[in-house]
Amino acid sequence: MSTSGKMPEDHIPDIMSENDPMAIAEYLFIQKTPFNRLLGLKVEWVETESICLKFDMREDLIGNNFRGLIHGGVTASILDVAGGIAAFFSLRSKVQGQSIEKVAQRFSKFGTIDLRIDYLRPGLGKSFTATGSILRTGSKVAVAHMELHNEKGKLLATGMGSYMVG
Amino acid sequence: MSTSGKMPEDHIPDIMSENDPMAIAEYLFIQKTPFNRLLGLKVEWVETESICLKFDMREDLIGNNFRGLIHGGVTASILDVAGGIAAFFSLRSKVQGQSIEKVAQRFSKFGTIDLRIDYLRPGLGKSFTATGSILRTGSKVAVAHMELHNEKGKLLATGMGSYMVG
Amino acid sequence: MSTSGKMPEDHIPDIMSENDPMAIAEYLFIQKTPFNRLLGLKVEWVETESICLKFDMREDLIGNNFRGLIHGGVTASILDVAGGIAAFFSLRSKVQGQSIEKVAQRFSKFGTIDLRIDYLRPGLGKSFTATGSILRTGSKVAVAHMELHNEKGKLLATGMGSYMVG
Amino acid sequence: MSTSGKMPEDHIPDIMSENDPMAIAEYLFIQKTPFNRLLGLKVEWVETESICLKFDMREDLIGNNFRGLIHGGVTASILDVAGGIAAFFSLRSKVQGQSIEKVAQRFSKFGTIDLRIDYLRPGLGKSFTATGSILRTGSKVAVAHMELHNEKGKLLATGMGSYMVG
Repeated sequence: MSTSGKMPEDHIPDIMSENDPMAIAEYLFIQKTPFNRLLGLKVEWVETESICLKFDMREDLIGNNFRGLIHGGVTASILDVAGGIAAFFSLRSKVQGQSIEKVAQRFSKFGTIDLRIDYLRPGLGKSFTATGSILRTGSKVAVAHMELHNEKGKLLATGMGSYMVG
Repeated sequence: MSTSGKMPEDHIPDIMSENDPMAIAEYLFIQKTPFNRLLGLKVEWVETESICLKFDMREDLIGNNFRGLIHGGVTASILDVAGGIAAFFSLRSKVQGQSIEKVAQRFSKFGTIDLRIDYLRPGLGKSFTATGSILRTGSKVAVAHMELHNEKGKLLATGMGSYMVG
Repeated sequence: MSTSGKMPEDHIPDIMSENDPMAIAEYLFIQKTPFNRLLGLKVEWVETESICLKFDMREDLIGNNFRGLIHGGVTASILDVAGGIAAFFSLRSKVQGQSIEKVAQRFSKFGTIDLRIDYLRPGLGKSFTATGSILRTGSKVAVAHMELHNEKGKLLATGMGSYMVG
Repeated sequence: MSTSGKMPEDHIPDIMSENDPMAIAEYLFIQKTPFNRLLGLKVEWVETESICLKFDMREDLIGNNFRGLIHGGVTASILDVAGGIAAFFSLRSKVQGQSIEKVAQRFSKFGTIDLRIDYLRPGLGKSFTATGSILRTGSKVAVAHMELHNEKGKLLATGMGSYMVG
C-alpha cells in the first residue's frame, strides 16, 4: 500500500475542530477513502443525526447484466458508508473539547461491527441517494439505519449498521 | 446503460447445460458482471455446495486510509457474490433437465433478499479468499454462509445471505 | 404434541374470508399460537400494511435480574410476531378470491426466513408495544420492519424480518 | 418488579472467581434469569470458547399450531442466550484477576447489541440443543455464532450475535 494517501495523525484534530461538517465528510470519507472515490460517491448533506450521499449509475457498477441492475455490493457499500458517516458525526459531537490524543485514539478505533442489508426492489435507476440516520449512540457503539432511493424516490434497499465509535 | 454487455436470453440454456461449473461461474459472475470485474474477483473453485473466490489487494479498494484496510463494502460485495454463486449452483442442480423456458424464468428472478456481514478483524492482507456454502436450499429461497480470509488464513469477516432462487 | 390445539384445515378458508382483521389476527396468532399466549401478547390494531401488538411486563419475562430488563428473546419474539402478522395480512390481501385449496396451500408455507434485531436501549418498562410494517411484499417473500416501544414511547429495539408468504 | 430475584452486587465477584463454569452459567443464566427458566433451558456444557444449552419441546412453546413447530421466538431466545453465555465466558477470561469493582462494572454493561437468526428448517423435534461459539472477542464487543439442532442432529437454525462485553 502506498503511504502517500495516509493522513498524518497530527492533522486529525484540525479537521475534527472545523465547523463545516460537509468539508469534514468530504475530506475524510471521499478524498481520503479510495474505494468511495472508485464508486463515485458524493456527499449531499450532513446534519446532526443524519447524512446523505449520492452516486450516479455507471456501467461498471452493474451486478446483473440481464437487467442492468446495480450490484448488491454497491448497495451494501454505500449504505455502510452512509451509516458510518452518521456514526462518525455522532462520535464527533462527543469528542469536541477533548484532547488531541483522545480524539485521535477514538478515531483510530472507528469501524463497522456488523451490517445488514435488505434488498427490497430491483436496483434500477440513473442516480441513487443513500441516507444514514443514528438510532442509538453510546460511548462505544452507535447504531444507524440506512435507506437507498433511486432518482424517482423509490425505496430500493434498507440497512442497519453497528459501528464501533470508541 | 449500454446494452452491449447484455447476454441474449437464448444463450442461457447453453451455459446452464454445460458441465464445467468453473466455466459457468466465470462466464456469468465475472465476464458478464461488470462490478465483479472492477473488484478483480476470480473464481478459485466450485463444488456442489460451496465455492471460493479470490481477489488481490489494490489501493483503490482501501476504505480506511489511516490503516490501509480494505473497505467494508468490498468485503460485503465479495461475500454477497460468494453466497450468490453458491446459491446459483444449488439452484442449477435443481433445474437440470428442465425446459429452456423454465430455466430462463428462474434465473431472471435470482437475487439477494438480504445480507448480514460481521467484520471480525481489520481487513489487512495482500490477497483475500471468500468462500460461500449453502446451509439450506428450498424451491424459492437458498441460505448461504460466507467467510473471508486473508492470505495468512486469518478469518476477517463472516456473512449470511438469503437468496431468491425461483 | 397434543393435537387438541390443532385447527382443522377445513376451517382456514372461513377465517381467511372474514372481514374483521382483528378477529382473524387474534384467532390465528393469539388463540391458536400457544407461545404468544405464554408471553401475554395482545393485538392492539391491524391495518392494511401495519399492525400493533402489546404485552405487559411480568417477572418471568426478565432476562437481566440485576436491572430488571425484559429478556432479549422476548423482544425478538414479539418483533418476529409483529412482522409475521404484517406479512400475513399482506399475503391475505393477495389470496382473497382464490380457491380454498390455494389459500390453504399458501398458508401452510408461511414462515420466518430470517430475523434481525437491534437492541437500542435497555428493555425497561411496565408495558410494551410492537409495530410491524411491510416494506416489500412479493409473491414469495415479504419484508417487514418492526419497532418496540415502552409505555413512555421510548424506542427500545428495531427489527427486520423476511417471511415466506407463498 | 419484585426485587426478591435480584442478586446483590457484592455477590458477583464470588461467582466470577469460582472455577466451575457450569455452576456459574447455571447460577447466572438459569437460576437468576427468569425467562430462561420459563423456557426450560438447561446448561449442557461450557468450554473456553463455546457452550451448549438444551430444552425439551412443550406445547406452550409452539408457534405454528398447524404443524406443531416451535415458535421462532423460542429459537431466537435460546440462540441469543447461547451466544450471550459464550460471550460472557470470553469476557470472564479477561476479567480474571481484576478488582471486584471492575468486574461488577463490566458485567453491568453486558448485553446483546444485535442478533440475526436464519430459520433453515421447520422447528420440529422432541428436544433441542443450542451451541454458541465465539468468533471474535474484543475489549468491548464479542461476536458469536450459534446453531440449533433437534434430537436427530438436524440443523434447524443458525444465529449471529454481537454482544457488549465492557
